[in-house]
Amino acid sequence: MKNKPTREPSSSNCSAGGGADPGRLAEMLEELRALLANEQELHHKRWNRSLPFGDYIVDRWEKAKALGFGEGSSIYDSALVLGDVKVGKLTWIGPFTVLDGSGGGLVIGDYCSISAGVQIYTHDTVEWAISGGKASPAQAPVRVGSRCYIGPNVIISRGVSIGEGCVIGANAFVNKAIPSGMRAWGSPAKSQAKASCREEH
Amino acid sequence: MKNKPTREPSSSNCSAGGGADPGRLAEMLEELRALLANEQELHHKRWNRSLPFGDYIVDRWEKAKALGFGEGSSIYDSALVLGDVKVGKLTWIGPFTVLDGSGGGLVIGDYCSISAGVQIYTHDTVEWAISGGKASPAQAPVRVGSRCYIGPNVIISRGVSIGEGCVIGANAFVNKAIPSGMRAWGSPAKSQAKASCREEH
Amino acid sequence: MKNKPTREPSSSNCSAGGGADPGRLAEMLEELRALLANEQELHHKRWNRSLPFGDYIVDRWEKAKALGFGEGSSIYDSALVLGDVKVGKLTWIGPFTVLDGSGGGLVIGDYCSISAGVQIYTHDTVEWAISGGKASPAQAPVRVGSRCYIGPNVIISRGVSIGEGCVIGANAFVNKAIPSGMRAWGSPAKSQAKASCREEH
Repeated sequence: MKNKPTREPSSSNCSAGGGADPGRLAEMLEELRALLANEQELHHKRWNRSLPFGDYIVDRWEKAKALGFGEGSSIYDSALVLGDVKVGKLTWIGPFTVLDGSGGGLVIGDYCSISAGVQIYTHDTVEWAISGGKASPAQAPVRVGSRCYIGPNVIISRGVSIGEGCVIGANAFVNKAIPSGMRAWGSPAKSQAKASCREEH
Repeated sequence: MKNKPTREPSSSNCSAGGGADPGRLAEMLEELRALLANEQELHHKRWNRSLPFGDYIVDRWEKAKALGFGEGSSIYDSALVLGDVKVGKLTWIGPFTVLDGSGGGLVIGDYCSISAGVQIYTHDTVEWAISGGKASPAQAPVRVGSRCYIGPNVIISRGVSIGEGCVIGANAFVNKAIPSGMRAWGSPAKSQAKASCREEH
Repeated sequence: MKNKPTREPSSSNCSAGGGADPGRLAEMLEELRALLANEQELHHKRWNRSLPFGDYIVDRWEKAKALGFGEGSSIYDSALVLGDVKVGKLTWIGPFTVLDGSGGGLVIGDYCSISAGVQIYTHDTVEWAISGGKASPAQAPVRVGSRCYIGPNVIISRGVSIGEGCVIGANAFVNKAIPSGMRAWGSPAKSQAKASCREEH
């Protein structure tokens, strides 16, 4: 398919190191493409799924363990975990998520679904931006109890506390406390006692 | 865990393989950075665009073809495709998307725009979470007809059927069927006959 | 800059290159995993954060500089930048973002927070989709003034102009101009004079 550039580490054009050898870079790009095609085919056959590049490198359970999360929890490659974040056991954390514990600590319980696109913050930069960088970010800790379903793309603001067994509907923006056993949705989210959550959300 | 392919670097500090050689890791990181800088410059000059790392490795049309999608369809690296997902021809699938056919099959037609951040599900884990892992995920198939515009960050819930030529506004949460030719927006999405969709959405 | 470890490609199983050699691919996957584990440990210790794979390769400030953005601005690996995009100084651009200047130019000022998941468009494919590919994408330039806070997952539509010092609430869909000093939220976003934005958003 292409003429392989010889890779002779003895020749001078290879000595530049970080980036200078176009042949080496072209070769590496080919290798990464072959690796990805290979992983895609393997995962497709074995688990019937196709993933972003990074998720073929990361083991979701190992990443969770390295972060000190509880047994059986998992977290996708694309999740960002910032600052002091504690997560219980058997909690599922999806792709494209932000778990920010940089502003006072974020605690998430057991058996939670932290759906794809969820962002949980213990700080915000509202005042920082409108003051032109003069004000510091606002900060406050956040807690999400056990057995909570946090729907796709939900945003949880600094200072919020969510109880046990709550259901937060997709695309909600939560900026007030949600007591245990409630469901909530909307922007900003309003909560009501759980009842027919299955039917409506 | 596996038989390491021989790589005879003759010098002893290269024999450690998967992770043990800090020199090799530092070198690889340098190479990846050089590769990325190179691709960024190339894509910037040629197509005036800058992409996530994985999208320099993936060819969007090849990925779609490998997944069995129709001719001319494309899908970004960061898209997750789970389970049984069928996509027609000339459909554009953006970054940060989830196409979940794990709960009964997801079918998407031709000429659709599946915008960035869209998540389409054939299962949910609401009951799984609030039961503390006792209940199984709920499942139901989803269908999106041809010529649909699914706006950015739209969430489509299990069991939903969307007709042909629909327009779903940005950030909508769709949990009920949308008949052909309708526009819908909001969380949960409400639909009305298409008219001045351009003006309002 | 560093001593390259010798890697002698003289043995035949190393000559296959771009994809053909399963041993080389397996080795490369191991190396990437070791590299990632190493970076994760390093960043965890040094900055108490865990990032997606691509963000260990990319320097956020270097990426912004290469794109011609102003001094001190930064942009995550997963951000897509398309077409003609100008960004001022000290603006923070988060992960999972889309900055689309392909349809007439996108200009963003100084000291902005472009939160995670924000998508700003100068084109849309609504008519392209519902016409089955016959209509061209609609296009119009977008401007975001200085000192704006654009909340998580906000979508800004083609043709929109946002003034200076605005606060756009999480999950808003903005399809109309927002004058300077206003706050706005909802889908579509409605604006009102800033007052107690801290309390409610």
